[in-house]
Amino acid sequence: MHGLSRDDCERLDREDPLSVWRARFELPSGVIYLDGNSLGALPVGTRQRLDELVRVQWGEDLIRSWNGNDWIGMPRRIGAKIARLIGACDDEVVAADSTSVNLFKLLAAALRLRPGRKVIVSERTNFPTDLYIIEGLIELLGQGHELRLVHAGELCDALDETVAVLVLTQVDYRSGRLHDLATLTRQAQAKGILTLWDLSHSAGAMPIELNAAGVDMAVGCGYKYLNGGPGAPAYLFIARRHQRMAPPAIAGWMGHAVPFAFAPDYRPAAGIERHLVGTPPVLGLAALEVGVDLLLGADLRLVREKSRQLGDLCLRLVEQECAAFGFERASPHDSARRGSQVAVRHPQGYAIVQALIAEGVIGDFRAPDLLRFGLAPLYLRYVDIWEAVAALRRVMASRSWDRPEFKRKATVT
Amino acid sequence: MHGLSRDDCERLDREDPLSVWRARFELPSGVIYLDGNSLGALPVGTRQRLDELVRVQWGEDLIRSWNGNDWIGMPRRIGAKIARLIGACDDEVVAADSTSVNLFKLLAAALRLRPGRKVIVSERTNFPTDLYIIEGLIELLGQGHELRLVHAGELCDALDETVAVLVLTQVDYRSGRLHDLATLTRQAQAKGILTLWDLSHSAGAMPIELNAAGVDMAVGCGYKYLNGGPGAPAYLFIARRHQRMAPPAIAGWMGHAVPFAFAPDYRPAAGIERHLVGTPPVLGLAALEVGVDLLLGADLRLVREKSRQLGDLCLRLVEQECAAFGFERASPHDSARRGSQVAVRHPQGYAIVQALIAEGVIGDFRAPDLLRFGLAPLYLRYVDIWEAVAALRRVMASRSWDRPEFKRKATVT
Repeated sequence: MHGLSRDDCERLDREDPLSVWRARFELPSGVIYLDGNSLGALPVGTRQRLDELVRVQWGEDLIRSWNGNDWIGMPRRIGAKIARLIGACDDEVVAADSTSVNLFKLLAAALRLRPGRKVIVSERTNFPTDLYIIEGLIELLGQGHELRLVHAGELCDALDETVAVLVLTQVDYRSGRLHDLATLTRQAQAKGILTLWDLSHSAGAMPIELNAAGVDMAVGCGYKYLNGGPGAPAYLFIARRHQRMAPPAIAGWMGHAVPFAFAPDYRPAAGIERHLVGTPPVLGLAALEVGVDLLLGADLRLVREKSRQLGDLCLRLVEQECAAFGFERASPHDSARRGSQVAVRHPQGYAIVQALIAEGVIGDFRAPDLLRFGLAPLYLRYVDIWEAVAALRRVMASRSWDRPEFKRKATVT
Repeated sequence: MHGLSRDDCERLDREDPLSVWRARFELPSGVIYLDGNSLGALPVGTRQRLDELVRVQWGEDLIRSWNGNDWIGMPRRIGAKIARLIGACDDEVVAADSTSVNLFKLLAAALRLRPGRKVIVSERTNFPTDLYIIEGLIELLGQGHELRLVHAGELCDALDETVAVLVLTQVDYRSGRLHDLATLTRQAQAKGILTLWDLSHSAGAMPIELNAAGVDMAVGCGYKYLNGGPGAPAYLFIARRHQRMAPPAIAGWMGHAVPFAFAPDYRPAAGIERHLVGTPPVLGLAALEVGVDLLLGADLRLVREKSRQLGDLCLRLVEQECAAFGFERASPHDSARRGSQVAVRHPQGYAIVQALIAEGVIGDFRAPDLLRFGLAPLYLRYVDIWEAVAALRRVMASRSWDRPEFKRKATVT
């Protein structure tokens, strides 16, 4: 097998059916951005939407915008759009709060739906905030619930009739390993276990079919592959069959059946709206809507296909160009088992990532030794991967990572 | 006593030490805005700040902005600024989530601080979401807590040793009645009761001295007198003495002692940061900061003084100009007992408010019969009050409110 060349990458870009999408983002020059899995890039259109929102809807229309410009409908409207990205119905998703707060709300609801069961199963390598939220809720409730953390390979064995909820993130934030959502959901449900999936690292980068898989609940974030902007509102999904069964844990006025009746007693809305809490964050929702609208125009099967190819290319080029430098693959080799990111290990990982950033290649580092590269297929070119790996080779060959400014600062605790 | 004239109002504006502030807001022409207690006006500077944030910090600096542009520090930094508006120390306030979610978090913490007490006291006329949140938490915990709702005059009698927390809103959202925060806090604390104040309808419109009064906890919203924009992030206050005592109910990664260590086990931050949950909503926080920065330049004693005068003027003019039309004052006569809003009752309140809006005078209606006028002293002129009441007289004299388009639609339940 001959080695890959820059020309090969340019050819892939010429043949890429998604190549037109790059122009729909405002990307800085001189930067190769491999962190769209952490903060998605700025869509063309977001600035104008926000300026219009602030100048006209807030500045001129003022309070009248809640109805006149349908601010009040944003959580439902944007939720319905996100639903189309994750295989849900339009009345099963709302945009609201943060991923962590939404996970808290849904986990509390799930535990109420399984009052006799006391175990929550998750994975030791799950995204930390998901684990923290579970621990915090268990402590708050004081009802003897237990968080059982297992390794991915032991999940199926851990699913028994004592388990109330299985809480998993579809794509591992470090390795990029992709769970088989449909199979795990089926295995859980065979034991009467509810499933609560965190889609933060997968939604927008691949087709997801929540209802086809029979998923019970899900949450996800708006600022990664949905390109909703820093700290964008998150979303939550509850399958229709569960929506009327549990009262919301955080019973705010936006979840009331008739919020503007200002009744002293709480009466939850019939459907998914009951899991809304406070006043919708209009600025963040507007930016999120631009990102979601953009994504709705893309064929997620093509996005997934390119994502897999970008990942394969990246891993293969690191092997080909950087074999001498001691990198070890940390992501699954099989792209069918990977999300839209790849990671490699190196003992000097932190300093290497800093040196790469100084070269204009932005990835990130995750302790203890991971270099993580996010691959957002809508705005990344194959030739960007080539250039990124070329920069990695320069950094390694010149040992530029060994400069004092790239060394890790002591962690402040 | 002679009647007040438009000339009198113009004279008051000429003598107003706050008159220069109006130019610091972008106000629509042809509108008298008496709803700043619901959505504050747009500060000059917000648009530029947001455009810079989106174009440069998000679009160009991308993920690097979390540190490079101190996005990560926004909840603390803006919290510290809000602290100066409410008589708190800079390490006692963070900007985060919505008022409802913050109330949930603090109430859960408060109940943990008083494990032997089962009663939560509030007021029947408290803002509904505050009551809903309390009811929801009681139901979630299932630990036999009880919400005891009393009338304002009975609050002191209701405070006994069974009470864990007193939850009140400083200014009533309908009548504008102002609670004596210091006295009620002292009365509660004499019985070992924690106080949790909602400052949504007061902060920014008057000096508040939380620490001087010994308040334990507080929440408030960013989009009213703080002019932070629609659905702006809210804030929460916890007195230093309580900060280390309770673990947070919603234990998210932003409340971890070392969030970016990505440790699997939760260890709460030492101080107020432990009550942060998810990724900070950067767009909303940036707009909020502009509003708060603006307010920090104003003398809140002057703001309060003008607010009282505007309220007195409004009530007096309604009496003088609209005596024939059957309005009844619903706010305290004594401005020392009022927040920055006034309300009058009328059986046709709903239609009258709609007719006023058609005349360019934006107030709002609260069931069953309240016309509510918010008085934001930084951008409202005395002559605006004159014009608003003149419009009210026209609406009443011409019976324009009686047109079909101003009639209330059936409430959808």
